[in-house]
Amino acid sequence: MNMTTTADDEDRVPVTVLGLGPMGAALASAFLENGYPTTVWNRTASKAVALVEKGAVSAASVADAVRASQLVIVSVLDYAAARAIIEPVAADLQGKMLVNVTTDSPDRAREMAGWASGHGVEYLDGSIMTPTPTIGRPEAVFLYSGPEAVYEKSRPVLASLGGTATYVGADPGRAAAFDFALLDVFWTGMAGVVHAFALARTEGITAAELLPFGRGIIDLLGEVTAEVANDADRDHYPGDESTLVSNVTGMAHIITAAQDRGVDVSVLRSAVGVANGAIAAGHGEDNFGRLVEVLARSAARQGQDRPRTAA
Amino acid sequence: MNMTTTADDEDRVPVTVLGLGPMGAALASAFLENGYPTTVWNRTASKAVALVEKGAVSAASVADAVRASQLVIVSVLDYAAARAIIEPVAADLQGKMLVNVTTDSPDRAREMAGWASGHGVEYLDGSIMTPTPTIGRPEAVFLYSGPEAVYEKSRPVLASLGGTATYVGADPGRAAAFDFALLDVFWTGMAGVVHAFALARTEGITAAELLPFGRGIIDLLGEVTAEVANDADRDHYPGDESTLVSNVTGMAHIITAAQDRGVDVSVLRSAVGVANGAIAAGHGEDNFGRLVEVLARSAARQGQDRPRTAA
Ligand SMILES: NC(=O)c1ccc[n+]([C@@H]2O[C@H](COP(=O)([O-])OP(=O)(O)OC[C@H]3O[C@@H](n4cnc5c(N)ncnc54)[C@H](OP(=O)(O)O)[C@@H]3O)[C@@H](O)[C@H]2O)c1
Ligand SMILES: NC(=O)c1ccc[n+]([C@@H]2O[C@H](COP(=O)([O-])OP(=O)(O)OC[C@H]3O[C@@H](n4cnc5c(N)ncnc54)[C@H](OP(=O)(O)O)[C@@H]3O)[C@@H](O)[C@H]2O)c1
Repeated sequence: MNMTTTADDEDRVPVTVLGLGPMGAALASAFLENGYPTTVWNRTASKAVALVEKGAVSAASVADAVRASQLVIVSVLDYAAARAIIEPVAADLQGKMLVNVTTDSPDRAREMAGWASGHGVEYLDGSIMTPTPTIGRPEAVFLYSGPEAVYEKSRPVLASLGGTATYVGADPGRAAAFDFALLDVFWTGMAGVVHAFALARTEGITAAELLPFGRGIIDLLGEVTAEVANDADRDHYPGDESTLVSNVTGMAHIITAAQDRGVDVSVLRSAVGVANGAIAAGHGEDNFGRLVEVLARSAARQGQDRPRTAA
Repeated sequence: MNMTTTADDEDRVPVTVLGLGPMGAALASAFLENGYPTTVWNRTASKAVALVEKGAVSAASVADAVRASQLVIVSVLDYAAARAIIEPVAADLQGKMLVNVTTDSPDRAREMAGWASGHGVEYLDGSIMTPTPTIGRPEAVFLYSGPEAVYEKSRPVLASLGGTATYVGADPGRAAAFDFALLDVFWTGMAGVVHAFALARTEGITAAELLPFGRGIIDLLGEVTAEVANDADRDHYPGDESTLVSNVTGMAHIITAAQDRGVDVSVLRSAVGVANGAIAAGHGEDNFGRLVEVLARSAARQGQDRPRTAA
């Protein structure tokens, strides 16, 4: 479901962007560059100035901004901010399309979809997986979820944001669910990256010296991730290439060496803790991918009495 | 210092490989495929059978194996195993080259180099950064450290292991130092990967569905790592694109959502702990790369009274 078409000239319907942080401003710029009549609003009005120079109309209020377009995009800090902006203008939004590309949890996305449907607003939830400089360019990655009809209607306009857009399902929380899993990989990986540069520094190795090999290892991580994915979906974790027991031995060597050098080891030690739990549960001869099942299994157990939020 | 030459036919000197786990066996196979007279030895002798079929000579003892070649490679579980094998044959090794590609810490590599120099053995320490299927192929990555003259002498033979070899310095612990920093990134990243697949599973997203986006995020991690490296070497961490405070907010959202689903959050919570420490120290408006300096700084402080091992 990748976007391949952009709007024809006659289709350039007005668009409104609420929130002009780095991301909202980048979205508005892309619409302007693609010739869309673009209305913008931001809590701190001064952030609209540069966009007005590019041709945007700066609305004096959220209500004015919403009235200007059939399609309203909101991109702010989190859903609490989004709701603070949107709820007072429910009446103005009625019968319009609201595309919320603010990052937050699947539960919050579902809550917001519930609110929208209660107010006759067509709602699409989006996640932007790439940084602001990618917006309007081929590298941008967007995920959308919500009613497919709403996605199809907003698609030509959203295509002007560039890159690849994927519709991941009717459940409005689904784009956010992809998002939080992906950010999980990113931030955990980043914790490893800064730790590795610190460890190298204790050995007089500069970041520039480590970098080419670091990128190689990160490429390797990508390849191994494909193997983990394959094993995880079959719930079959053969340890013929490497086992949790040997993995933990390798991790323990790094922990010891880092500790010797006075470098905090809490992150890797937590990872070893998870792996040791799986070993204690009898999975020592499986590969590292077994941890997918072990981590999700405790969730399934607890999930039975977890209250699920909203629609 | 990448290898570009392989040995001429007349240069095919005998080589000995001690240790025939998956890696030792792969190394021996590559030597055989390149026409080197190859002698092998393994504690469990049966592992030599397949190599003998390919033309290797299986030595009855370590001493016999060492006597067969001027260049001896050792690849076993860890340095304790390597020393258990090597120390009894010190006299046989005298005047020969010992290349130890067993993974362990920089300190152990320096210790072993000290032992070798005390016994008149020319010692090179190596780290293999890629898995066994890469050996003999262009994807293989090797790091070596120790006296440059020893590296230059062993280089034509080692070139038959394929891929890219880099000489990282005269300090025999340096290859291992690169190695542990790189494995640190790898294992921390792997902890993030399995956690993300588990989190996705709690939302009914299969690993196959998440994978293409996961690989995109891992590519992004590689790009951001280059920026972190650049900032780290200047010790300058501008927060104009994103700040530690906003990063921690994003990480906290993932933790909350994972906790709601009963998924263990110890790894990411430890990462947030490190970041919060840096924020408490006044670095909240810097970018995430600041953690390189913060983690290494505590090391520098403690390092003053750390006893350094050997050579
Ligand atoms: N930046 C990126 O590269 C990137 C990448 C992917 C996704 N995202 C997501 O995109 C969204 C926007 O991010 P961003 O980078 O533009 O910066 P941000 O710091 O996450 O959000 C700043 C925006 O939120 C507004 N805001 C915050 N609290 C508010 C409140 N209570 N009421 C009204 N407005 C409020 C700000 O208004 P003021 O100007 O008045 O403070 C500003 O418009 C976030 O959810 C982020 O996770 C960003
Ligand atoms: N496999 C990879 O993809 C890979 C990649 C990069 C680096 N490495 C490194 O390469 C080295 C070898 O790895 P590997 O994959 O071959 O498997 P391994 O399980 O790390 O090592 C197995 C080898 O060590 C020997 N060994 C263990 N304890 C011993 C002892 N006390 N005395 C004598 N021999 C002993 C085993 O002999 P027995 O057969 O008699 O048990 C076998 O030859 C390790 O340091 C590893 O970290 C491996």
